[in-house]
Amino acid sequence: MKLRIVVTLKPGVLDPQGKAIEHALAGLGFGGVAGVRAGRIFELDVADDTSDAAVDEMCRKLLANTVIENYRVERQP
Amino acid sequence: MKLRIVVTLKPGVLDPQGKAIEHALAGLGFGGVAGVRAGRIFELDVADDTSDAAVDEMCRKLLANTVIENYRVERQP
Repeated sequence: MKLRIVVTLKPGVLDPQGKAIEHALAGLGFGGVAGVRAGRIFELDVADDTSDAAVDEMCRKLLANTVIENYRVERQP
Repeated sequence: MKLRIVVTLKPGVLDPQGKAIEHALAGLGFGGVAGVRAGRIFELDVADDTSDAAVDEMCRKLLANTVIENYRVERQP
């Protein structure tokens, strides 16, 4: 089973990488771009019998820092 | 208009971060996890009249290294 785990900074947490990208895009002449937020994505191939709870635990223990990050698990078709 | 740009390594390109996560998950007792690939995701708020070509150019010029990375643009509802 293929999973996609998207880890993004919580709203309100400062995102210097996103800000840098925003400024760089403006510098390259792309106007009208705002609110850039950078995150990470992990694509995993897990055994079909992996429970939702186990996936959640993987995220909390290793993939995301839940103090400042949110994560979202998407099951791939 | 909200866009989500997903940047992933091309198939065949070595992914040491993914490999490290795979081993760490196994070390934490999560079996049956294979083929971990790490990537980046950018959430952008662009002007509604931004053309697909402009978004493509942003990706090629700044957000992705097209020599080793693929990118995918997803329009958010």
